[in-house]
Amino acid sequence: MKNNNQVSVPVIKRLPRYHRYLEELKNMGVVRISSKELSQRMGLTASQIRQDLNCFGGFGQQGYGYNIEQLYNEIGLILGINKKSKAIMIGAGNLGHAIATHLHFENRGFDLVGIFDNNKNVVGTVVGGRTVMDSETLEDFCQKEQPVVAILCIPGEYAAENADKLVSLGIKGFWNFTQYDLMHRYEGVAVENVHLGDSLMTLCYQINKLSDSDEVTE
Amino acid sequence: MKNNNQVSVPVIKRLPRYHRYLEELKNMGVVRISSKELSQRMGLTASQIRQDLNCFGGFGQQGYGYNIEQLYNEIGLILGINKKSKAIMIGAGNLGHAIATHLHFENRGFDLVGIFDNNKNVVGTVVGGRTVMDSETLEDFCQKEQPVVAILCIPGEYAAENADKLVSLGIKGFWNFTQYDLMHRYEGVAVENVHLGDSLMTLCYQINKLSDSDEVTE
Repeated sequence: MKNNNQVSVPVIKRLPRYHRYLEELKNMGVVRISSKELSQRMGLTASQIRQDLNCFGGFGQQGYGYNIEQLYNEIGLILGINKKSKAIMIGAGNLGHAIATHLHFENRGFDLVGIFDNNKNVVGTVVGGRTVMDSETLEDFCQKEQPVVAILCIPGEYAAENADKLVSLGIKGFWNFTQYDLMHRYEGVAVENVHLGDSLMTLCYQINKLSDSDEVTE
Repeated sequence: MKNNNQVSVPVIKRLPRYHRYLEELKNMGVVRISSKELSQRMGLTASQIRQDLNCFGGFGQQGYGYNIEQLYNEIGLILGINKKSKAIMIGAGNLGHAIATHLHFENRGFDLVGIFDNNKNVVGTVVGGRTVMDSETLEDFCQKEQPVVAILCIPGEYAAENADKLVSLGIKGFWNFTQYDLMHRYEGVAVENVHLGDSLMTLCYQINKLSDSDEVTE
């Protein structure tokens, strides 16, 4: 495999999507696929797909296409989903509850080892098979378990202070569901933001653009 | 304002982020900001910000910076968040529940007018102040209310059939939380995907890359 330190962010962001499509094909019993067929399914160009996969050394054989299981496994290895980093969740409200129960962490490289909340009514309840712990025990827990990722499902106004504390406790990455942008706050800490409000506003723009063009053509 | 039909997707995707930062500054009572200051806060370059905002005709005055309230309002108008398109939600499980209660739809251009589920145990319950309706009543509801957007919070295997039906009922846009990729399925239908699993795997890659570089340098 090529050195992948220089792979660009857009390529990295497409890898989980390749992984998802390949999993679907694998589950359908498909063994091989050409870059052309894969591109049609995914709405990318065939040359885009070849370029992307070449960043990691390429897996296709000219004229034979890609072996789906092999490519699926290789992309999984590149993403590192076999390594199972320890993750904790901060905030077990509606959103935390949904994420803890909805996502298959273990298939995506993580082991959700603890859920914390400071609401005494929530502490002790079971969410996705895990008992919610008191935020006051967070420090002891981190020293003992050494989780590397924190999932922030708390209101935006508490994001900064919680993130500072978590970084001091050894957290190396955030899955950030708050409105607060952690992106450029820490050196050497990975941040993946899920700004649902931004996504909704992007859809709003698209919908209004569609109806504007209706008005022009009608 | 310039014709914004040709504005690129990455610029559009950044607009909600500008809106979010400007809202925060506005709430802090800040009146003006230079592109340099705004860029430092947002982790973009000042020239990137000037370029982005120039796509829409530019709002800054050389040497005076941007008037925050004006820029905030203008970006809101470009996004169309004042228009309040009617949206329905399909699926009131954990994830649907969280989204319906967590998001301020009305601040982001939408009015959530109905929530549907086919689970009889969920139908009739109240989620985010709205009573969940039976999916069997969806067709009548759409004919009467004419919603334009559907929020899909259902398992991936039901995404395609539900989306086909919704498009036939007049839906013009999807906020898609399923694993299924609706992106290239329909002409003239807007799709905004929130693939949480992809986001989690992207974080997995970043975390593993951090720990790889630790191993090299230690």
